[in-house]
Amino acid sequence: MSSRLDAIRARAEASGAASAVVTHLADIRWAVGFTGSNGVLVVTPEAAHFVTDGRYSVQARREVTSAEVHVPGYQLWEHIAESGWLRSASGAAFQSDHMTVQQRQKLDGLFGDVRWVPVAEMLVEDVAAKTPAEVEAVRQAQALTCEVFVSLLPLLQSGITEQEIATHIITEHLKRGASQMAFEPIVGSGPNGALPHARAGSRALQAGDLVVIDMGGYLDGYASDLTRTVAIGEPGEEARAAYAAVLAAQEAAIAGASAGVTGAALDALARGVLDDAGLAEYFTHSLGHGVGLDVHEWPRLSSAVQHVLPEGATVTIEPGVYVPDRFGLRIEDIIALTSTGCDNLTPLAKDLLVL
Amino acid sequence: MSSRLDAIRARAEASGAASAVVTHLADIRWAVGFTGSNGVLVVTPEAAHFVTDGRYSVQARREVTSAEVHVPGYQLWEHIAESGWLRSASGAAFQSDHMTVQQRQKLDGLFGDVRWVPVAEMLVEDVAAKTPAEVEAVRQAQALTCEVFVSLLPLLQSGITEQEIATHIITEHLKRGASQMAFEPIVGSGPNGALPHARAGSRALQAGDLVVIDMGGYLDGYASDLTRTVAIGEPGEEARAAYAAVLAAQEAAIAGASAGVTGAALDALARGVLDDAGLAEYFTHSLGHGVGLDVHEWPRLSSAVQHVLPEGATVTIEPGVYVPDRFGLRIEDIIALTSTGCDNLTPLAKDLLVL
Repeated sequence: MSSRLDAIRARAEASGAASAVVTHLADIRWAVGFTGSNGVLVVTPEAAHFVTDGRYSVQARREVTSAEVHVPGYQLWEHIAESGWLRSASGAAFQSDHMTVQQRQKLDGLFGDVRWVPVAEMLVEDVAAKTPAEVEAVRQAQALTCEVFVSLLPLLQSGITEQEIATHIITEHLKRGASQMAFEPIVGSGPNGALPHARAGSRALQAGDLVVIDMGGYLDGYASDLTRTVAIGEPGEEARAAYAAVLAAQEAAIAGASAGVTGAALDALARGVLDDAGLAEYFTHSLGHGVGLDVHEWPRLSSAVQHVLPEGATVTIEPGVYVPDRFGLRIEDIIALTSTGCDNLTPLAKDLLVL
Repeated sequence: MSSRLDAIRARAEASGAASAVVTHLADIRWAVGFTGSNGVLVVTPEAAHFVTDGRYSVQARREVTSAEVHVPGYQLWEHIAESGWLRSASGAAFQSDHMTVQQRQKLDGLFGDVRWVPVAEMLVEDVAAKTPAEVEAVRQAQALTCEVFVSLLPLLQSGITEQEIATHIITEHLKRGASQMAFEPIVGSGPNGALPHARAGSRALQAGDLVVIDMGGYLDGYASDLTRTVAIGEPGEEARAAYAAVLAAQEAAIAGASAGVTGAALDALARGVLDDAGLAEYFTHSLGHGVGLDVHEWPRLSSAVQHVLPEGATVTIEPGVYVPDRFGLRIEDIIALTSTGCDNLTPLAKDLLVL
C-alpha cells in the first residue's frame, strides 16, 4: 500500500505542494483500504494520518495499516489543524473536484496560513491503472453479473413487467454475494428502450420488443457493469440490422483497444461502424467509462478524451442505438487494457437472443 | 409549485442577491419536480429556468411545469452564461455546501463579473416544512417498511445469517413497490449490534441474540427509515432492562416533540431517561434526523441543535444503547411535528419481541 501513498506524494509535489489531503472516499479506500463513510487522509512527506469519527474506531484500526489512525470524535478537521501536520510554507494539495466551497471556507478559519492548492482529478490516473489483483476483482464481479443475466433468461417472456425483472436482478445479485447494487437496474422494453437511462417501470414485455437490460453490483468492493439486449419473439428486420451494427461497432472498438490509445480513437471506431450503417445519429452518448472501486470512474471514453488510456484501466465499451418512441439497444462489456490489446472481462455471448 | 420558487427568491434576497442557482438535485426536485440526475435551476426575480442534458429532454419537459426547460447538450453552465439570465450587479446566490471548489472556479471563467454569493443550507428550512401531502407520502413509505418488518418475523430464527435477512428486506421492499432502498439495510446480531452502522454480514443468529434491524426504502420519491430490535430466545435481564430504558427514552422524546422545540431539547429528554438507567454513556450518537426526499435531511436532532424545529418536519426519533463486544439495540420511528405535538407515522408496535 505504501507505494500508493508515494503516488499521492508525487501528485502533491507536481502541484507545488509538499503534502496532500485526500477527501474522496473511493480514493481513501484505494490508498489505505478504509471502507467506511467518513474520513480524511493526510499525507505529508514523512508520514500518513487517517482521521475518522467514533463510529469507525474499530473498523479503521482493522482496515488501515499504512497510515496512523486517529479518532477525535466528529471534529476531524479541527484535529488535523491542532496536530500541526500541515505547515504553511510548503502547501497542501486538496481535491478541488470533491471539496465543497463551504468546506474550503472552513479550512481558512481553522488552519490560518496553510497554503491550500486546488487540484482536480488528483489521483484518477493512479486509480485507473489497476493492478492484476484489481483486474481480477472486476472480472469476478462481472462474472457474477453474467450469471445473474443467465438466471434471468427463463423469466424474459411476454407479460413480465420491467420492475419484476429489476427485482429479480437485485435479489440474484445479493444471493450470489454482491454487497449491494452499483446502480438501480435499467430495464427498458420496446419504446422505453429508446431512453438510455430508463428506469424499470410497470410496462409488461410484449412480443416484438427489444429489451435493454443494464445492471451492475459490488463484489468485494469492485463494481460490475453489463448490458445485454434481447428480443421477445422475432424483432423484425430493422431491429436485427441495428443489433448487428451495434455489435459490430462494439467489436471494432474492442479490437482497437489497448493501453496508449485515446478515448476519442475508440469512440470513433464504434461511431464509424454505426455511421456506415446509417445509425450514427442514434448513438447519443459516449462509448464508455472506467469502472472499479466506483462504477463510474475516470477515464470517460468519448470524442472529447484526447489523453491516452493507461495500462490496467478497466473500462466499459457500450455503444447503443436509440430510435425515439420505437426501440433502443445497447451492448456493454468491461475490458482491461494491456500493452498489446485488451482482456475482455465479460464471459457472456453477444449473439441476439430471441426468446 | 410556484410558491416554492418564491421561497427560493426570498432566500436569495436574504443573502443579498437577486437570483439563485440551485444545484442540489433533491432541492431541484422539491422546487420543480425533476427526478433525473443532472440539472441546474436558475431562479431570477422574473423567471425560472431549468437546464438539463439531452438524456432528460423528454423527462424534463414532462416533469417540470413551473420553470422553462432548456436542453443545451451537456454544456449546462455555458448555456446559462450565454443566456444572460444572471446580471452582474444584482448577484446570484449559490449552494456553497453542494458546489465544489472546481465548479466554483469554472464559473469565474464563464460568467465574467457576476457576483456569486455563497449560501450554505439555503433551502433546508423550506424543504423541512413538509406539506400535508408530503407527510402522507412519508407515512406511506414508512407503512411499506413496517409491512416488510412483519414479513421478516417468520425468518428470524437461529441459523439465518444477517446477509440473508438483508436480502429478504431488499426483495420485499421492491416487491411491495419501493423504487429502491434508501440505504443498505443494517442487520446487527449479538455483538455486531454494538456497531451502530454494522453492515449485514455472514454471522448467523444465535439463541440469546438481540438483533438490530434498520432499513428504509423510497416509495414515490419519499424515504422511510425504521429500526426495530428483536430477541432470538430469552435475552436475559440486562438486555431486557436496556430495551425497556431505550423504549422509555424514545417515548419521552416523542411525548416532548412539537414544532417550536429544539433538537437539543428532544435529545436531552431521551438522554435523561437513559442517564437515569445508567446507560447514557452507551448512547453514542444523536437522537435523529430529518427524512423526506432524502433519507438524511436537515434538521439533525442532537445536543448541538439550538434552533427550533419547524412545523411539518418529518424526523426520526432513534435512541440506542451499544455495549461494546456484547450487544446493541435501537428503536426508531418517524414522526411529523405539529403545532401541538406530533403525529407518529410508524404503525408498528414496540414491545420487545422474543422470537
